[in-house]
Amino acid sequence: MNPDFLTELVERIPGVDAEARHEAQLRQDRLTKPTGALGRLEELSVWVAGVQRRCPPTQFQRPSLVIFAGDHGVVTKAGTSAYPSAVTAQMVLNFAAGGAAANVLARQHGVKLRVADMSVDTDYTEFGGIDPRIVAHKVRRSTGAINVEDAMSYAQSEAAWQAGIDLANEEVDSGADLLIAGDMGIGNTTCSAGLTGLMTGLEPADVVGRGTGVDDVTLMRKTAAVRDAMSRGREHKGDPIALMAAVGGPDLAAMAGFLLGASARATPVLLDGSIIGAAALVAARTSRRATQWWLAGHRSTEPAHTAALERLELEPVLDLGMRLGEGSGALTALPIVQSAAALLGEMATFEEAGVSDREHDE
Amino acid sequence: MNPDFLTELVERIPGVDAEARHEAQLRQDRLTKPTGALGRLEELSVWVAGVQRRCPPTQFQRPSLVIFAGDHGVVTKAGTSAYPSAVTAQMVLNFAAGGAAANVLARQHGVKLRVADMSVDTDYTEFGGIDPRIVAHKVRRSTGAINVEDAMSYAQSEAAWQAGIDLANEEVDSGADLLIAGDMGIGNTTCSAGLTGLMTGLEPADVVGRGTGVDDVTLMRKTAAVRDAMSRGREHKGDPIALMAAVGGPDLAAMAGFLLGASARATPVLLDGSIIGAAALVAARTSRRATQWWLAGHRSTEPAHTAALERLELEPVLDLGMRLGEGSGALTALPIVQSAAALLGEMATFEEAGVSDREHDE
Repeated sequence: MNPDFLTELVERIPGVDAEARHEAQLRQDRLTKPTGALGRLEELSVWVAGVQRRCPPTQFQRPSLVIFAGDHGVVTKAGTSAYPSAVTAQMVLNFAAGGAAANVLARQHGVKLRVADMSVDTDYTEFGGIDPRIVAHKVRRSTGAINVEDAMSYAQSEAAWQAGIDLANEEVDSGADLLIAGDMGIGNTTCSAGLTGLMTGLEPADVVGRGTGVDDVTLMRKTAAVRDAMSRGREHKGDPIALMAAVGGPDLAAMAGFLLGASARATPVLLDGSIIGAAALVAARTSRRATQWWLAGHRSTEPAHTAALERLELEPVLDLGMRLGEGSGALTALPIVQSAAALLGEMATFEEAGVSDREHDE
Repeated sequence: MNPDFLTELVERIPGVDAEARHEAQLRQDRLTKPTGALGRLEELSVWVAGVQRRCPPTQFQRPSLVIFAGDHGVVTKAGTSAYPSAVTAQMVLNFAAGGAAANVLARQHGVKLRVADMSVDTDYTEFGGIDPRIVAHKVRRSTGAINVEDAMSYAQSEAAWQAGIDLANEEVDSGADLLIAGDMGIGNTTCSAGLTGLMTGLEPADVVGRGTGVDDVTLMRKTAAVRDAMSRGREHKGDPIALMAAVGGPDLAAMAGFLLGASARATPVLLDGSIIGAAALVAARTSRRATQWWLAGHRSTEPAHTAALERLELEPVLDLGMRLGEGSGALTALPIVQSAAALLGEMATFEEAGVSDREHDE
């Protein structure tokens, strides 16, 4: 059911380097520390070696974050968010001006940040024109309300997937060695909950969360909207383009393309929260192999995210009760991944340091 | 029961800034994100504001790690470790040469690293003299086997506490704005388990862990040694100097002094794992107020550490299955704490960014 461009892309996705992973495991046991004493950092270093295809690995030198922004018609039609849709455009400008959480964290860790307008509901005339720092890939302004109609057409979905692939290629071409996908879009947890429900087989009530912080009445409306969207989307479960058209949106489709595009370029991705998690579930349906290139940065408090991580068999690095999106969870986890790489690459071995290994005669 | 120098020190410990904490909480709600969406990072930013005594706070500019190294006679006499005592000195040289995990992490995060020899069982003649990068505060070579005799004399314990206080003062005087205490010492988990058992009221079997990775037989020997040490130490529970003399060691006593010394200088401390946790329990007995200045960097896999954190009412930032010591867990957590400070200090508010806040008319 995949269009040619997706089939061709998926066929190009390589495996990670099993030999580098094996070498990393062996090297961990020769470093000047008790075996296993670095806990999760040891496992993370093996992942880094595998995706960098060398042992020892190094810290990532040029991480790059793309924030996919889009509005969602379901907010206006079904009232599923605590914030008005206007906030999406305002936050896009906040990213461009450097004032959002993602900007602060990206600056802290030397991460390049781009914001891609996929379907924000503005033509920027009210803001005096589009800020040149915003990447314009707009497929449409906002989307259909997914509880009653398709988010977008099949052709628009194809265009959005392709835009995500193109963005991954652009970043890799300009030197990025680690990609992060972020999200911004009032209403996007409604869509991601629906997609996650469909991909995991869970009930609406098990995947719907409070998003930006909705009250009980809004949560009921949101759950009903997700239930209706899941009914509409069920027939498209086997067709990722049609599924994104029915219950996703240009932002979510682009993220899925971005994840596969990165994998096809042998470039690792540090995943953020529940929105990327839903996109990852859809992308993984087209290529299970692609998931080797992905690492879960954190666990969001959104229930859909835990369901997605379980289905993807990904263990998050952090669990700090975050639920902001924008790539903020992945950015917060980045220094931990860097530590894992640095430790494997830079620690002395027992032989190098003249340190006695444990007594093996016990 | 405290000697004068300790009583005077403890009386000088100030409280953190409650007003700055309150301002931080208010400011979090004005930043361009849903309330609470940064999860634990919001709480951490409030702690940083309190200990920096200003809002908004900034990232820490000059963090400093002191690794307290010492040997423990219980290893030789009771066989409680998987590694020979000689490893302590070898690792001290590894720190001086820059090859240990703590060195790698300190370089990654711009942290100054010092290693203080409190009681390492060497005079360095076998290594061609003491490396000038090692701070010599040696109170004695190794300690008495705490299962059958005191670790050191009361006077030696006093000297070790004072050395820790002096080291904290030295670091603060040279500009440090955040301190980390690390540990290195084969056998030190035997001592810390005993201290933690005495401070929490738990049984030996509940606080003894596998340390560097002991096998089942060694674990039995270790548990028996801790049981005997706890019996010997029980009468000194109310006297921190005597307690450290009976079942601690110069390294542990110095860490306790370091923690109180930092607090008396209104300088925050990022705690590492189970060894520092035991020292913190003893230090907290002399001043509950001091604990406001401490943040738990991570949760070690050592069972004593979880017991210590609960008693101290400290929630660790990370839980990554680490059990290395050296300050490695605290160093790994440091960028998360820095993120919390940066976000509160640098994110735009709703007003500044022209972003609509949530609709309050629901």
